[in-house]
Amino acid sequence: MPSGAVPGDARHSSGTSSGDSPVESRGERKERTRRAILDATLTLCHESSLVALSLRQVTKEVGIVPTAFYRHFDSIEDLGLALVEESFASLREMLRDVRRSGPTYENIIDSSVQVLGEHVHSQHDHFAFIARERVAGPPAVRSAIRHQIELVERELAADLARLTDPTYWTTEDLRVLSNMIVTSMVGTAEAILSSRPEAEEAIVEQARTQLRMLLVGALRWRSTGLG
Amino acid sequence: MPSGAVPGDARHSSGTSSGDSPVESRGERKERTRRAILDATLTLCHESSLVALSLRQVTKEVGIVPTAFYRHFDSIEDLGLALVEESFASLREMLRDVRRSGPTYENIIDSSVQVLGEHVHSQHDHFAFIARERVAGPPAVRSAIRHQIELVERELAADLARLTDPTYWTTEDLRVLSNMIVTSMVGTAEAILSSRPEAEEAIVEQARTQLRMLLVGALRWRSTGLG
Repeated sequence: MPSGAVPGDARHSSGTSSGDSPVESRGERKERTRRAILDATLTLCHESSLVALSLRQVTKEVGIVPTAFYRHFDSIEDLGLALVEESFASLREMLRDVRRSGPTYENIIDSSVQVLGEHVHSQHDHFAFIARERVAGPPAVRSAIRHQIELVERELAADLARLTDPTYWTTEDLRVLSNMIVTSMVGTAEAILSSRPEAEEAIVEQARTQLRMLLVGALRWRSTGLG
Repeated sequence: MPSGAVPGDARHSSGTSSGDSPVESRGERKERTRRAILDATLTLCHESSLVALSLRQVTKEVGIVPTAFYRHFDSIEDLGLALVEESFASLREMLRDVRRSGPTYENIIDSSVQVLGEHVHSQHDHFAFIARERVAGPPAVRSAIRHQIELVERELAADLARLTDPTYWTTEDLRVLSNMIVTSMVGTAEAILSSRPEAEEAIVEQARTQLRMLLVGALRWRSTGLG
């Protein structure tokens, strides 16, 4: 029922609850408010963390009455989990871009570092949110981020399996290498986020060198010991 | 003037400002309150971050009047910087332990991972504080942590210079390798902090394998390219 009788989200800024967008359906209006809540939270988290954020701060920023929040999310934690979901959907898209370029060593190094740098900018608020909530967020949000990073590591390990000699690499060691690459990439993203723009090129160059160092190790690795 | 006329820190919990520890000097009492403020802050930061912490929360936890705070620190940020200083003093002590064991490849791998695991437990609150404030703290605190980590990286690069062939390793590449090792160790410390006790052995074993992978790469590295 697109023209439902149930009033839309009550907005402080508008005296009427309908009429300013006559063609907008109830579903569209609800989605727009949900989007506004997500965006407001990303902004409010810039200088603090989700654990310090009150429902009232969020609804005030969006311009809705506090009770309207619950039409979209059960709690601040639930809202945080939705942002984790959204951030990693973007990250997986980024990784698909890298994969599409063809997984050779050279491509992995050059494409992935370049794509990472681009996405840190285009998805700046999401990256900053994940970097912060990963260690400072509510327990359920930290746990969801850990789980998502593990999924990324597993996918990368599967890619690496196609590039390495199964005689020398155990599945476990591929997972361990993948974990180190992902940790290093997380570190690179965090360094870009906290750097001045003029320092970024050096950070990206350092990330390329680090991936080369890791993959030189990978080329020579024997799972039984120190090569 | 150890027996000064200026009253000690006013304590809510005690009606008299002196007398319960007659042998304690003014300097000792001041140091004890300073310590109590630092410890209370580490505890209060467990579930949140320094940016969400109010001066009033800290003084309430310690049991002193809010104005007494300023006898010890200029601001919450200043208090945060003192905790950064203290945390890295402990970390440098840890690194001296590793260095004392003799810097061969095998020792670097086994000692450093073991010592890291031990210190994450014995200095748990400090490690948790640094892990969180590194990304979620006030800008000045984040910057101080970044600076301290850079100092650690430089010291490690100097150690690595003694272990690698200068024909193949530029100073810049040693710094880049050192950055990756430190990033990996930070990741290990964070993983231990957020893990269940029974998962810790697997994390420590993974860290050992990762260092071996990095150093296999280091042994084969040529700064000019993919070796």
